[in-house]
Amino acid sequence: MTKTPDSPEHIFTVEAVPLKYGRGALRELGHDIKALNARRVALFTDRHLATSEPVAIARAAIAREGLDVVVYDAVRVEPTDAAFREAAAFAADGGFDGFVSIGGGSVMDTCKAANLYATHPDDFLAYVNAPMGHGKPVPGPLKPHLACPTTCGTGSEMTATAIFDFVSENVKTGIAHRHLKPTRAVVDPTTTYTLPVGVVCSTGLDVLTHAIESWTARDFRTRDYPANPALRPPYQGSNPWSDIGSLKAIELGGRYLERAYADPKDHEARDHLMFASTLAGMAFGNAGVHIPHAMSYAVAGQNHRYVAAGYEDEAPMVPHGLSVVVNAPAAFRFTAPACPERHLQAAQALGADTRNLTQEHGGEALAARLAEIMRNTGCPNGIGALGYTEADIPALVKGAVQQKRLLVQAPRDPDESDLADIFRDALRYW
Amino acid sequence: MTKTPDSPEHIFTVEAVPLKYGRGALRELGHDIKALNARRVALFTDRHLATSEPVAIARAAIAREGLDVVVYDAVRVEPTDAAFREAAAFAADGGFDGFVSIGGGSVMDTCKAANLYATHPDDFLAYVNAPMGHGKPVPGPLKPHLACPTTCGTGSEMTATAIFDFVSENVKTGIAHRHLKPTRAVVDPTTTYTLPVGVVCSTGLDVLTHAIESWTARDFRTRDYPANPALRPPYQGSNPWSDIGSLKAIELGGRYLERAYADPKDHEARDHLMFASTLAGMAFGNAGVHIPHAMSYAVAGQNHRYVAAGYEDEAPMVPHGLSVVVNAPAAFRFTAPACPERHLQAAQALGADTRNLTQEHGGEALAARLAEIMRNTGCPNGIGALGYTEADIPALVKGAVQQKRLLVQAPRDPDESDLADIFRDALRYW
Repeated sequence: MTKTPDSPEHIFTVEAVPLKYGRGALRELGHDIKALNARRVALFTDRHLATSEPVAIARAAIAREGLDVVVYDAVRVEPTDAAFREAAAFAADGGFDGFVSIGGGSVMDTCKAANLYATHPDDFLAYVNAPMGHGKPVPGPLKPHLACPTTCGTGSEMTATAIFDFVSENVKTGIAHRHLKPTRAVVDPTTTYTLPVGVVCSTGLDVLTHAIESWTARDFRTRDYPANPALRPPYQGSNPWSDIGSLKAIELGGRYLERAYADPKDHEARDHLMFASTLAGMAFGNAGVHIPHAMSYAVAGQNHRYVAAGYEDEAPMVPHGLSVVVNAPAAFRFTAPACPERHLQAAQALGADTRNLTQEHGGEALAARLAEIMRNTGCPNGIGALGYTEADIPALVKGAVQQKRLLVQAPRDPDESDLADIFRDALRYW
Repeated sequence: MTKTPDSPEHIFTVEAVPLKYGRGALRELGHDIKALNARRVALFTDRHLATSEPVAIARAAIAREGLDVVVYDAVRVEPTDAAFREAAAFAADGGFDGFVSIGGGSVMDTCKAANLYATHPDDFLAYVNAPMGHGKPVPGPLKPHLACPTTCGTGSEMTATAIFDFVSENVKTGIAHRHLKPTRAVVDPTTTYTLPVGVVCSTGLDVLTHAIESWTARDFRTRDYPANPALRPPYQGSNPWSDIGSLKAIELGGRYLERAYADPKDHEARDHLMFASTLAGMAFGNAGVHIPHAMSYAVAGQNHRYVAAGYEDEAPMVPHGLSVVVNAPAAFRFTAPACPERHLQAAQALGADTRNLTQEHGGEALAARLAEIMRNTGCPNGIGALGYTEADIPALVKGAVQQKRLLVQAPRDPDESDLADIFRDALRYW
C-alpha cells in the first residue's frame, strides 16, 4: 500500500458490534444463539447471578430451542490472570460451539478470553498486550459470543478488549484485538432493576467517564497515516462518528445518574443509563479512552483492601468504575488546554450551567460538574478516600505509565511528572 | 418462541454496515477487498464514472494487490428491471468472488441485485417485494461487496434494499433483505468534488428527507411484538438509536446544503453532506422511511419526460432525490398531528427559528423550512413543476398506495383520500 500524498491520518472506520436492546431481550437468547448455528452453549456468569432471574430466563430460552447449555459461574469480579486461565480450561474442555455471557464487564471479559484460548490455543502471555505479554494478533474469528450486560455498565459488550488483574505484576492489563468483539450485544435493561444502588452508580460513573474520555480523546487526524490500512489501530481517536455517541451518552449520564441514585425504583433512569452505557461502549470501543483509564489500572491494581458500597460480598477491591472516575476530574483539568472547547461542551452536556463561561473555563467546569455528580451518587472523594496518600504517588505513577496504549490516546501527552501532579490533584475533590 | 407477557414491541436491533470514511478511502480498496478473500472482482459503475478519477484510483488500488478486476459500466441511472437482469447475467457469467460498486444509488443497487442473482440464482420476480414479486427471503449471504458512494447521496451503501423501475407496471419497487446489505461502505468524499451542483442538491435533498422520514417514522413500540424474533421487520420504526443519527443528519443537511449550492468549490460543505448521507443511511436503513418515499415511486415511475439540472446527459427522468423531496413538505404537514413535537424538533435541527413556536406549529414550521431549502437549492417547486396536474392525482395515488411496505412506517396512516390531498398540497409550494 503506497502512502497517499496527504500524510496525517484522514480516514476512520466504524465496526460496531450488532445490538439487540430492550426490556425482555434475554427471552430471545435461544433464538439468537441458535441462529448462529450453536448447538452446545457455554453460559458464563458469576456466582451471584447464577441463581438470578436473568440467568434463569436465559437458560430457559436456550433450552427451549433444544440446545445444550453448561453454566460456568466461577467468574471473579475484577478477574485475575488465574481466573482467565481457569475459565479458558473450562471452555477448552467443554467442546462448545457457542458462548453466552451474562453479567458485568468481568463476566463478559472472562468469556472473551475463554473463547479466545479455546478457539486458538496458545501460551497465556501470547495474546496479552505488550509489554506485559507478547501482543500476538488473534489468528482468526472466535466462536459466536452473545454478550449480555447486567450492569449499566462497562460497555464491554461493545469492545474488543478483555481486562484482567495481573497479580504477580501488581497491575491491570488485558488482551485487545478486534476478533474479541462479541458477535452481538444483547442488552436487556430489566437486568439492572435488582442491582444495588452502589453497583448502578459505580458502573454508571464508568459510563460517564468512558463517554467523556472518548469525546476528548486525541483527534484521529493527529496520528500518522498508516503504512498499511491493516495497521490502523482499533482505538482510532475521536472522530465524527464516535463524537455523536459520546456526546449523547454524556447527556444521558448527566441527566439520569443522580436520579438513579436518589430512587432505586426509578426504572426509567436505569433504562436510559443502560442505553447510555451501550452508546458509550460503541464510542469508546471505536475512539478509545485515555488518562483516567490508564490511571485506574494502578489505582485498582495496588489496592486490595477497599470495600465499596454494593460490593460487600466480594473480596476487597476497588470496582472498575470507581477506580476510573476518581481520577477523572483531575485528568480533565490536565487535558483541557489541548481542546478547551470540547471540555466546555462536555460540561454543558453533563448539565453544567455554562452560559457565562468561555472555553478557557472548560476544564474546570467539567471537573466541577463531574465531582458534583460523584458527590451526589455516593462516590469516594478522590483516591484519598480509597486509602492512598501522597506517599503512594510514585508507585501509582509507575503503574500508570505502563499503560502506553491508553496514554497515547490523550489529547495532551502526560509525562511522569504530569501523572504525579494529576494523582496529587485526585487525592481529594471536595 | 413464546410471546412475552407485555405485548407491544419493546425491542429494537442495530446491524449497521461497517464503514470506512475519509478523503482518499478509495485508495485502500485493493487492501479491503483482498482482506475479504476476493481474487476476481467485478467493479460496477456507470458510463460517466467509468473514465473518472475515482474509478481509476479504485482500479489501480485493486490491481496493485494482484487481483483481477472486470469493469461493468452499463449501469443505468434509475435502473429498470431490464437493467437489473442484464447486470445479473454479467455477474453470473464472470465467475467473480467479490464485488465493488462505485457510483450513486443506481450503481450500488444494481450491484446488490447482480450479486444476489449470481450467488443465489432464481426467477427475477422471486426476490422482488410483494405484491409485484414473490418476496422470497434471500437464502444466505452474498459474495463480499464494497459499496462506494460518489454522491452525497442516497445512503444505499448502508441499506438492505435495491430499487428499480418496473417498466411494464409503471411503478418503482425493489428487493429488500438484510443479506443485500453491502459488506462494507467505503465513503470517500473527494468523489463528490467534481459532481455538478444539480446532482449534489438532488441527492442532498434525498439525504435530508431520509433523515426526517426516519426521525418521524412510526415509533417501533407501536408494532406488535413478533411471534418469532426472525419476523421482526428490517425497517423497525424510529428508535433511540436511529433517532441519534437522524437528528444529526438533519442538522448537517440544514447547515451545509444551501452552502454547497451557493459555492460549488465548498469542499467542506460536500464533506459534511457526505457524512450526513452516511448517517442518514444508517438511520433509515434501521428505522425505515415512509410517505414521501412511497409517493416518490409514483412520481418518478409515471414521468419519463423531465430533465433535471445536472442530469442533462441522461434519458429524461426525475432523479430519485427530487422525486422524494417534492412530496416531503406536504407529507410532513399530514404526519405532524401524530407527533407534533418531533416535527418541531426537526424544524429546529434544520435551522428554522422555532423560539416562539409551540408544538402545534411543528408541521408547518418543518414544511416551511424544507421548502425554503428546496427553493434555495434549485429544486422544482412541487410536483407541478415536474409537469403533473390535478388530473394526474388519481394515477399517482394508485401508484403510491402500492407501497404498503413504506406507508405502514408512517406515524399516521394515510388512506387513498389522504394521499390525494397530500399530492394536491404538493403541486406547488411557493
